Amino acid sequence: MSTSESSYHHGALREALVEAGLRALEAAEGSAISLRELAREVGVSPTAVYRHFPNKDALLAALGDAGLTRLGAAQAEAYAAAGGDRAGFAATGRAYVRFALANPALFRLVFAHGKAGAAHAGKSDPAWDLLKRSTITLAGGEGAAADRLALQAWSIVHGLAMLMLDGRLPADEALIDTVIAPETFFPSANPR
Amino acid sequence: MSTSESSYHHGALREALVEAGLRALEAAEGSAISLRELAREVGVSPTAVYRHFPNKDALLAALGDAGLTRLGAAQAEAYAAAGGDRAGFAATGRAYVRFALANPALFRLVFAHGKAGAAHAGKSDPAWDLLKRSTITLAGGEGAAADRLALQAWSIVHGLAMLMLDGRLPADEALIDTVIAPETFFPSANPR
Repeated sequence: MSTSESSYHHGALREALVEAGLRALEAAEGSAISLRELAREVGVSPTAVYRHFPNKDALLAALGDAGLTRLGAAQAEAYAAAGGDRAGFAATGRAYVRFALANPALFRLVFAHGKAGAAHAGKSDPAWDLLKRSTITLAGGEGAAADRLALQAWSIVHGLAMLMLDGRLPADEALIDTVIAPETFFPSANPR
Repeated sequence: MSTSESSYHHGALREALVEAGLRALEAAEGSAISLRELAREVGVSPTAVYRHFPNKDALLAALGDAGLTRLGAAQAEAYAAAGGDRAGFAATGRAYVRFALANPALFRLVFAHGKAGAAHAGKSDPAWDLLKRSTITLAGGEGAAADRLALQAWSIVHGLAMLMLDGRLPADEALIDTVIAPETFFPSANPR
């Protein structure tokens, strides 16, 4: 049943397991993920899986890390594509909401209370790092204005994402554009 | 064991059950609520409870309705106490986040996917009604500007509440004030 474990280079099995885990997460909403099933899917023995992830929480933490990394990458790409500055700032917000809608179970996992999100605390967070950098640019330097802008921006995109995921607002592109229009997405970013 | 059911006036038993349910919700995080236990707590037979709530989902829907009503009342009080207008608008935002922090399980229930929140869809929502009225006042009339302001305001307070409930941001008053300061809480509300 099992492919030889040596067919995976060092680190590649872990990556294959995370990939399989991410697919299972969106298919099964997390709770139903089984390490044994992941082992079967990537073609190794359960023992080989336990070497990387001793239990399901360890796997979920890794999936949460992968989620934050992908979220940050999606936002960085959107920021660059929009040419940075205010348009780029709004683009990162739209990318955040779109990521949540495209990966609902993963997004919930990243932010779930006491789950992967909490385990991640203190580690690097590329999404937050980008947000801080872009708000410092918009606010014209570090300080209270940049901090506030970052917190407001995170809150608005997180709230919009959650309200759409939970079916309280329709998950449509036009609504995302309305809420995160560059000209109204925190005009206080440009001090008058 | 059971008090005579006739000791409850018409409607009073339902109210007593909702009250007991709200207490149980915050104590047990919802999933552990039992209709039999509520019956014991308010001193009636399970049969009497089933007359009002045939199953747990019916009770949870009622708790969700009660949650929205209380949220709306807390916001209306805050709006009036702050004198309405822009200060009142910000006050309703702070009241939303504070309500979430004070009633975490109830707040989650109101907005949980496919739970009470969904059952509530289409019924009156005093929190949303107040938000719409206050944004129409701020925007100087009904229209796209007022609609956008309402969606942005709901998103920011909902996101802040969720990030605090899920431990991603510290649940402290100063942070609420920072994010929902009247002077920065959607300056676009006053068209220039």
